[in-house]
Amino acid sequence: MSDQPDRVFIKEEGPREGFQIERGEIPTEHKIALIDALSDTGLDYIQVASFVHPGKVPGMADAEAVVAGITPREGVRYTGLWLNQRGLIRAIETRRLHLEGKLTLYASDAFLRRNQNRDPQQQLAAQPELLRMYQTHSIPVRTGFVTAAFGCNFEGDVMPEKVVHLVGQMRTMARDAGEDLSLIGLGDTMAWAHPERIRRVVGMVQDAHPDVALSLHLHDTRGLGIANAYAGLQMGVRHFDAAVGGLGGCPFAAHGGAAGNICTEDFVLLCEEMGIATGVDLEKLCECAALAERIIGHPLPGKVKTGGSLNALRARISAE
Amino acid sequence: MSDQPDRVFIKEEGPREGFQIERGEIPTEHKIALIDALSDTGLDYIQVASFVHPGKVPGMADAEAVVAGITPREGVRYTGLWLNQRGLIRAIETRRLHLEGKLTLYASDAFLRRNQNRDPQQQLAAQPELLRMYQTHSIPVRTGFVTAAFGCNFEGDVMPEKVVHLVGQMRTMARDAGEDLSLIGLGDTMAWAHPERIRRVVGMVQDAHPDVALSLHLHDTRGLGIANAYAGLQMGVRHFDAAVGGLGGCPFAAHGGAAGNICTEDFVLLCEEMGIATGVDLEKLCECAALAERIIGHPLPGKVKTGGSLNALRARISAE
Repeated sequence: MSDQPDRVFIKEEGPREGFQIERGEIPTEHKIALIDALSDTGLDYIQVASFVHPGKVPGMADAEAVVAGITPREGVRYTGLWLNQRGLIRAIETRRLHLEGKLTLYASDAFLRRNQNRDPQQQLAAQPELLRMYQTHSIPVRTGFVTAAFGCNFEGDVMPEKVVHLVGQMRTMARDAGEDLSLIGLGDTMAWAHPERIRRVVGMVQDAHPDVALSLHLHDTRGLGIANAYAGLQMGVRHFDAAVGGLGGCPFAAHGGAAGNICTEDFVLLCEEMGIATGVDLEKLCECAALAERIIGHPLPGKVKTGGSLNALRARISAE
Repeated sequence: MSDQPDRVFIKEEGPREGFQIERGEIPTEHKIALIDALSDTGLDYIQVASFVHPGKVPGMADAEAVVAGITPREGVRYTGLWLNQRGLIRAIETRRLHLEGKLTLYASDAFLRRNQNRDPQQQLAAQPELLRMYQTHSIPVRTGFVTAAFGCNFEGDVMPEKVVHLVGQMRTMARDAGEDLSLIGLGDTMAWAHPERIRRVVGMVQDAHPDVALSLHLHDTRGLGIANAYAGLQMGVRHFDAAVGGLGGCPFAAHGGAAGNICTEDFVLLCEEMGIATGVDLEKLCECAALAERIIGHPLPGKVKTGGSLNALRARISAE
């Protein structure tokens, strides 16, 4: 496909989104060990911790200790997550994270009400304050993210026109504050996307906003995650979130139907086979997936960690 | 996509390929219960048993008892697998199966030697006898199948030109015997395919043989199965093999890296969302996947059985 990118950039979400959902406490040194192993794979971005209320997400109470304990590697950007100024300040104070401001709008009114107890007008009204918060701390705001961009368990299908409209609103608000959103993330938060829907929504956003790069955050709850990523690659998308081993939800444990992001090593295999560079050493990444399984004590859904990489097989065959 | 089919035809392989790989004996009545439940979903084809040597595949020694025990449903074609005349006669004698002859050629010489101890010339030389065997029993030969059509763990990448050549050879041999192959199956036996390779190989076979229908048999060992199926749908492929729950290999049990066919219910969801008819009731199929898990006693890798179908969610949302 002519639109296929030469290189993609992967944000590894396993250590944050992955460990957050696990039951039982995960020792801080195990989190650090996984992050350090991931740092050695060639990944561009690794999200390492959530700076959220320790009472609400006890598994992330050690966020500062995790960030202080890792051995940062040149070229890797370590990121964190926060939901308010208190969390942002905690992230700033670690002095080790790559900090970027992000605006987020929900494409589902029902999910917005449920998660944030806000209506769409209140959601919009809250953004200027957020922009001011980042500017107060001299943190650039470059990313806009649309949650539930493809559909919602509480509202149903989301119209692509609404996503395009929200992206326009975010860009305008950022511009009004002197910022320029250069990356727009589309989140398939509840796994409503299918490949043709990805092509349609991505295509419409690209047509309306040809000057921004797009990123996909795809959950694999209904098994279409990698097919959706492939559709994104066909459309020229260059930024993807993923989780090593498929961390972040596991239908084989007691997590109900939740599933994590697309599995990083399965996605890297897809890219390698399509001739798209990732910068990642797939063999090392599979070792990280095995390490993640040992840490959490149950199998993860990713396939390549057991199926094996094809380039490794090719090398073995030519050596014979 | 303009080439996308309106309707696909699924051959369910779970009861045969799936149960065959399981360790431990599966009671005949459990196999029958799953097949009867699958019969009620709307599936077009269900492969129910292997008529192979009971000493070599003990788990299939009850093939006749399984076929005798099921309650056949109008419109469903029950198929079986055999490797020689002895097996074929056993299948014929059940008097309940939809019998079709099939020619199979290996696209990997290394895999052919390993599995059948034959070279390519010997493989070709064996086909006329096979054709005569089917004609002796008045069984039409309509399908040609290419094993390892996308690559092989023992030989590496397989050139698309070789696949096209093998399809031509099969069709000529069939024609010389007065038969006409109208369906060509391409097997990704060892999971070497990726979506762009599917598009390339399928496209080349379609160009050289525009008068035959194509079928895909995709293993999910490296997590690209559903993405590969999507690429097949984009190219207009209408026939797919699949296994309920992803039966037929499970990276979470002690089966090494093997994985089964693409998961039937995940594939049905993909088709439903793309507006392609399958004839299958997805809710009932998910119940079959849950039944299969209870029978084998461990989780299966399919996602929709826990993630849930989107049409069910849409119905619930509109009812609220």
